[in-house]
Amino acid sequence: MTILSFFTRASRAFNGYPASSKLLLLCTLSLSGGGVVAYSEAQVDASKTSVQVNEKDCKKKRVVVLGTGWAGISFLKDLDVSAYDVQVVSPRNYFAFTPLLPSVTCGTVEARSIVEPVRNIIKKRNGEIQFWEAECMKIDAANKKLFCRYTVENNLVGNDEFSLEYDYLVIAVGAQVNTFNTPGVLENCFFLKEVEDAQKIRRSVIDCFEKAVLPGLSEEERRINLHFVIVGGGPTGVEFAAELHDFVQEDLINLYPSVKDLVKITVIQSGDHILNMFDERISSFAEQKFRRDGIEVQTGSRVISVSDKEITMKLKAKGEICSVPHGLVVWSTGVETRPFVKDFMGQIGQANRRVLATDEWLRVKGCEDVYALGDCATINQRKVMEDIAAIFKAADKDNSGFLTVEEFKDVIDDILERYPQVEHYLKSKHLRDVTDLMKDSEGNYIDKVDIEGFKLALCQADSQVKNLPATAQVAAQQGAYLSKCFNRKYKWKDNPEGPRRFRGSGRHQFHPFQYKHLGQFAPLGGEQAAAELPGDWVSMGRSTQWLWYSVYASKQVSWRTRVLVVSDWTRRFIFGRDSSRI
Amino acid sequence: MTILSFFTRASRAFNGYPASSKLLLLCTLSLSGGGVVAYSEAQVDASKTSVQVNEKDCKKKRVVVLGTGWAGISFLKDLDVSAYDVQVVSPRNYFAFTPLLPSVTCGTVEARSIVEPVRNIIKKRNGEIQFWEAECMKIDAANKKLFCRYTVENNLVGNDEFSLEYDYLVIAVGAQVNTFNTPGVLENCFFLKEVEDAQKIRRSVIDCFEKAVLPGLSEEERRINLHFVIVGGGPTGVEFAAELHDFVQEDLINLYPSVKDLVKITVIQSGDHILNMFDERISSFAEQKFRRDGIEVQTGSRVISVSDKEITMKLKAKGEICSVPHGLVVWSTGVETRPFVKDFMGQIGQANRRVLATDEWLRVKGCEDVYALGDCATINQRKVMEDIAAIFKAADKDNSGFLTVEEFKDVIDDILERYPQVEHYLKSKHLRDVTDLMKDSEGNYIDKVDIEGFKLALCQADSQVKNLPATAQVAAQQGAYLSKCFNRKYKWKDNPEGPRRFRGSGRHQFHPFQYKHLGQFAPLGGEQAAAELPGDWVSMGRSTQWLWYSVYASKQVSWRTRVLVVSDWTRRFIFGRDSSRI
Repeated sequence: MTILSFFTRASRAFNGYPASSKLLLLCTLSLSGGGVVAYSEAQVDASKTSVQVNEKDCKKKRVVVLGTGWAGISFLKDLDVSAYDVQVVSPRNYFAFTPLLPSVTCGTVEARSIVEPVRNIIKKRNGEIQFWEAECMKIDAANKKLFCRYTVENNLVGNDEFSLEYDYLVIAVGAQVNTFNTPGVLENCFFLKEVEDAQKIRRSVIDCFEKAVLPGLSEEERRINLHFVIVGGGPTGVEFAAELHDFVQEDLINLYPSVKDLVKITVIQSGDHILNMFDERISSFAEQKFRRDGIEVQTGSRVISVSDKEITMKLKAKGEICSVPHGLVVWSTGVETRPFVKDFMGQIGQANRRVLATDEWLRVKGCEDVYALGDCATINQRKVMEDIAAIFKAADKDNSGFLTVEEFKDVIDDILERYPQVEHYLKSKHLRDVTDLMKDSEGNYIDKVDIEGFKLALCQADSQVKNLPATAQVAAQQGAYLSKCFNRKYKWKDNPEGPRRFRGSGRHQFHPFQYKHLGQFAPLGGEQAAAELPGDWVSMGRSTQWLWYSVYASKQVSWRTRVLVVSDWTRRFIFGRDSSRI
Repeated sequence: MTILSFFTRASRAFNGYPASSKLLLLCTLSLSGGGVVAYSEAQVDASKTSVQVNEKDCKKKRVVVLGTGWAGISFLKDLDVSAYDVQVVSPRNYFAFTPLLPSVTCGTVEARSIVEPVRNIIKKRNGEIQFWEAECMKIDAANKKLFCRYTVENNLVGNDEFSLEYDYLVIAVGAQVNTFNTPGVLENCFFLKEVEDAQKIRRSVIDCFEKAVLPGLSEEERRINLHFVIVGGGPTGVEFAAELHDFVQEDLINLYPSVKDLVKITVIQSGDHILNMFDERISSFAEQKFRRDGIEVQTGSRVISVSDKEITMKLKAKGEICSVPHGLVVWSTGVETRPFVKDFMGQIGQANRRVLATDEWLRVKGCEDVYALGDCATINQRKVMEDIAAIFKAADKDNSGFLTVEEFKDVIDDILERYPQVEHYLKSKHLRDVTDLMKDSEGNYIDKVDIEGFKLALCQADSQVKNLPATAQVAAQQGAYLSKCFNRKYKWKDNPEGPRRFRGSGRHQFHPFQYKHLGQFAPLGGEQAAAELPGDWVSMGRSTQWLWYSVYASKQVSWRTRVLVVSDWTRRFIFGRDSSRI
């Protein structure tokens, strides 16, 4: 049977395909500028450097990974599993391609097309990784122990709780929605963090329309039920507003013609502009696009409560308080730490912090052998001024009390690597070379500086320390970086590759984590998108949307999801979005 | 932009395509017999006969249709909406291709691929049909009024309840699961009636596996959690068992290798064989296939209660009662009437009946202008013996007190149409011709019969009255039939096409409904299926599965679902089924 055997062969071919290979070179023909954009991944070649474990006969070190989001999965994908006994704990047995969540809310892409079972991913690593679908309830840092629970409501037999011991713990659990303690938000708002959230929104949008067209409602009631409010003008909120607008205009008004003029979409933003983390050209492009589309953008408004019928906010400019009736509110403002991570922070002396702090090597501060990456952690960049005396001393080889240009040049690479804010500072001051820093108090170039001069030269550098954004890109790069460190941990023990230790002797074992910004997209609906590309490029319009399609297709975690996402896009072009309430 | 404009054009072309056209001629190459099977639908050409309403200026008659399943949608698809003011009420705003529900439980096909929004279907009828997503709570037959409620839990403004008035009511609400009042079934079992049921089962199967592999469970506990029980050996239960077996063997044991030997599937059937409504060759083929696959078939067992941990049954042969622990139970035994239909039956004097009774024209007995079709109704076939005297009188034109062969031949076509059991009787007796009925009490052929002889000839015919099965095929044919009647209602008022009225004068306005059995499938997993085809053909094996694929693809309600279902099948061949818990 020819057809069947074709499928069988094709099936084997695809299933056998390594998940890590990214062959899809996608070209987008730019309408505006013309040209070909090829997207290549910042590939980490860590997996190729196999660990030759000397302690082959000893017991393997136990690594427990919490979470299967961007950080966790990208760590697991490149980890050399022959060197470790790896266990993964996550309440979700799949990885979700979260940047496409807003598309799932309106059925542009199906929920199942953006998820890949964790077991599928770890199966390809030869089954050396064990996965438990459970939630970590508590970390016992002192005894290197975790307490976990299977959280799905079930009548199945056997204990739902269990504990795990670890030698190394990798915390990659992401964050949860932050309501800023606004009353009524948890009860009356929808969120956009999980796949289930997106599915709920999709059903509820249809509910609003079905209720609005029922007989016996007044026009005002129909209008209220069709008022969709998005709180938060960040990339997620804006993308959802755009998706919803497309869904309504391209699909729903044809199916619910009697209420087509009653639909209203409002974006509430506390700042002065939406997308204010982007370049201001993008921000104003988005605002203009929304104005043309009839999406109301209400800036300078802080939401103070949400009830089942109304959303109440304070207009910052006038100080007025006003309430608006709504049909559906999506809350998309920010994230906060999960409770068990808060508890863990208390144990290790980070109780007063907002987010788990790590050093530049992603090691949790105040706790041995625990690593944290992704949205649940921030890197606490070491200030150059804290170490300034040690740096001066190390650089001043002849102990003359002065640093010459040559002595400074000798240590500058290590300084730039250890304290990347110095490089940002040079860029911000448009200084061509580090020696340009060597000036006296009147601003004249000098041959050598004393400790005070050295301090003066670098005293403003620390203002350039930047926190990394809570994005998928950062998390994925951190995961890949950490797996590289783990893969080389034993082999390179006596061969440190990192920068010089200014306090203490020798070098750090690894280079510190460095984030490489590959750009960020803001899809704005109607086949238009804006993007901030590396090198401060800004791209907007229809061609950018095609670039978005290519990048998002190529970044999929497996060939299965890649095929599904692309076929979902095609389906939407041909048949529109589905409005069935399931 | 060439690609975009192609899509736009393609989109228009597909969207404009009439839903009723069924161009897909699918051929299956039979492995066993060889040959081409082309499946053609029993097309009803009703929609082509447009009604020339004489009362164009009068108010259009209001038709309310309850339900958007097979019966309701097939009625709506062919109804001439220019002649009626049509309103549709259903708690689901989509039509679901229910025969594929068992495939949805295991992700062979996605839920969204088998549903089509009702509004999409009625949009193609030029928007003359109004749809309300609501449940009918009560029918007030006396005042021709309905009370409906929007049953989705919501915080939206406006009254959830409303009433509708009708001139004609079409009840096509299907039936609900019948638990036969078995304790614990509603609380602890899964069902397979709605799309949501199938989605729930899919998630729960994954839950059973995830729980079973957790650390700290005993092997016995793992085994219990992986014991899947199906109650009911009908087509749905058997198909689900087969799908589940394939899901486990083809996908899950690769992902959960540690528990691959602990999975058990049991089908519990009260009768002596599974699939006992099919030819016994199919039934035994299915039992053999299941035995080879390791699916336990426990016949002759009646379930007497289900708890969260155990299922208790009575073994009919020994009279013993035994309990078996389970991980998941799917209840698929039979259907019963919905409560508001029961209430309506009370109003019209059918309180003692199990199911709403209609005459052969699908008109509800005891109630004017109400029609019922599909699973919620049965046709109460008029007995020939009830009318035997009237038939004799009408046939005996010369009032001689005897019926000659010629006189009998004169009325026989009307008899056969009005009382189809007579034809079944002739077939069952292998009589070539109706005149063969004319024998005297000794069995000799005679020229004429008196009333007693006539009674004797037909007295056994009524034993051949058959109730139609509660299948999609019956419902769809009834819907198409009824729309044909509605389309011709006024035009053909003075031009009746039906059989002669033996009691009373003239002819019936329409031919009575006649069911044409097009065959039935039973997919058995592992790319094997069994089928009962028209003409008492039986087909089994791999080729039948391909016939099943073709038929189910061609019967889809829209091109969109057809493309989606076929691409789901292809995806499954290439990538397997998804095991993400969403």
